[in-house]
Amino acid sequence: MPLVNRKGVNVYYESHGSGLPIVFLHPWTTNRFIWASQIFEFAREHRCIVVDHRGHGLSDKPANGYAIGESAADVVAILDHAGVDRAVLVGNSIGGMIAMQTSLDAPSRVLGNLILSSATNMAATMDPAAGEAMQKDWRSVFSGLLSVTVSAKSKAERPEILAFMEGCFRTPSNFTEAVFFASAADPNGVFNWNISDRLKDIKQPTLIIAGEEDGATTVAHNQFLADGIPNSKIKLYKDVGHFCQIEKPMVFNDNLRSFVQQFK
Amino acid sequence: MPLVNRKGVNVYYESHGSGLPIVFLHPWTTNRFIWASQIFEFAREHRCIVVDHRGHGLSDKPANGYAIGESAADVVAILDHAGVDRAVLVGNSIGGMIAMQTSLDAPSRVLGNLILSSATNMAATMDPAAGEAMQKDWRSVFSGLLSVTVSAKSKAERPEILAFMEGCFRTPSNFTEAVFFASAADPNGVFNWNISDRLKDIKQPTLIIAGEEDGATTVAHNQFLADGIPNSKIKLYKDVGHFCQIEKPMVFNDNLRSFVQQFK
Repeated sequence: MPLVNRKGVNVYYESHGSGLPIVFLHPWTTNRFIWASQIFEFAREHRCIVVDHRGHGLSDKPANGYAIGESAADVVAILDHAGVDRAVLVGNSIGGMIAMQTSLDAPSRVLGNLILSSATNMAATMDPAAGEAMQKDWRSVFSGLLSVTVSAKSKAERPEILAFMEGCFRTPSNFTEAVFFASAADPNGVFNWNISDRLKDIKQPTLIIAGEEDGATTVAHNQFLADGIPNSKIKLYKDVGHFCQIEKPMVFNDNLRSFVQQFK
Repeated sequence: MPLVNRKGVNVYYESHGSGLPIVFLHPWTTNRFIWASQIFEFAREHRCIVVDHRGHGLSDKPANGYAIGESAADVVAILDHAGVDRAVLVGNSIGGMIAMQTSLDAPSRVLGNLILSSATNMAATMDPAAGEAMQKDWRSVFSGLLSVTVSAKSKAERPEILAFMEGCFRTPSNFTEAVFFASAADPNGVFNWNISDRLKDIKQPTLIIAGEEDGATTVAHNQFLADGIPNSKIKLYKDVGHFCQIEKPMVFNDNLRSFVQQFK
């Protein structure tokens, strides 16, 4: 069961199937199980690599080191360990940030990016009051944030989606308070990471998928990425929030299938 | 990442959370990802142990050794390795068979069983023509069998469920042709395993959950278990096939939550 050790931090990944490699990068506070509806469908024709980012799941949770660039370097270390020269990166939320940073830092290793509901420079559009409230009771604030990450339809018909998210950030073996605050405070972490002026340097074909009802990384956040990345397209979906891969898995999978076709 | 070696076979499991232990045992040909909507919700209050049975997922795939009793012995080895004295077992399909066999072979280790859509002595009700057809093209026959394992509602609204199942058995790194035939031929394997006259010896509290539209382990199969196990109850659900944990995850989770309450 592969653990990659980079500068003393163990990062966990799994590899399923064979073929053109796809690396799946999950959102903050969750883990690789969010890709259950993708891994084995795509493993029929691809090598699917699913990662638990540092601070999450079965990976180590160091006291600090939560710059997006650290996780991007972990991805490169995983590609090396797995013997993968180049892969398609699929990243949701911070997973998308990690994909974009990997595309900048190790462009020769990235065939293309499917960015699902992501952003850069999130701090600029955050309510400062939210930051203060998090200091007092991060779990309540984060739970409130999650409540606007799925569509009204998903909330009504698929309550297990939010239950999964709640379970992930409330299970200390998966994610901890220390990781939350270290990530939030990092000058290049989930909130402060800002590559606004470097989007133009992401040269890989990039598909951005966003949900019209995403209250976390909004359509505007995603449109900003699409406007900045030269070789990019954006697709918006109704009745979808932050998690198209669970809220409308077949739609997401059809998009991913079409996207990877160009690299075969 | 725990691998338990029993007589030369490595079996993979993960442990998430802490509290009264629950062990999740997946159906034939799949893997632990089928429990994505349970693991982290229950990890908030429980130690959730999820297994890849031998022949599946990240576990070894030996040429033989696919008697249900072998997987039950693997469960006991996992409990030993994890330092767990007693646990609630949750088993779907062959996962249920493994739970029942563990309850017979190591009764002191099992607090209770939640058996989701399972059976014993399946060979007795199988069409002999299906066996012959499997010899010629097991994937087509198995795909046909899967098509009757989810409800009409699930098939229409949640096509990703069957896509997951198809991906699992068609991905050789997850499940192989050799495992299929070795399991099917084993005198105590998935089809031939028969504890009809020993059901009365399962003394643990047992809840059986079955879907009215399950064409694999039918209501009759599950009722037979309920009739035979003394301290058991059965609950049937509409619009559900073989996979209540995915088809109606919140209903399943409510049942599991109530069931484990008695052991606290």
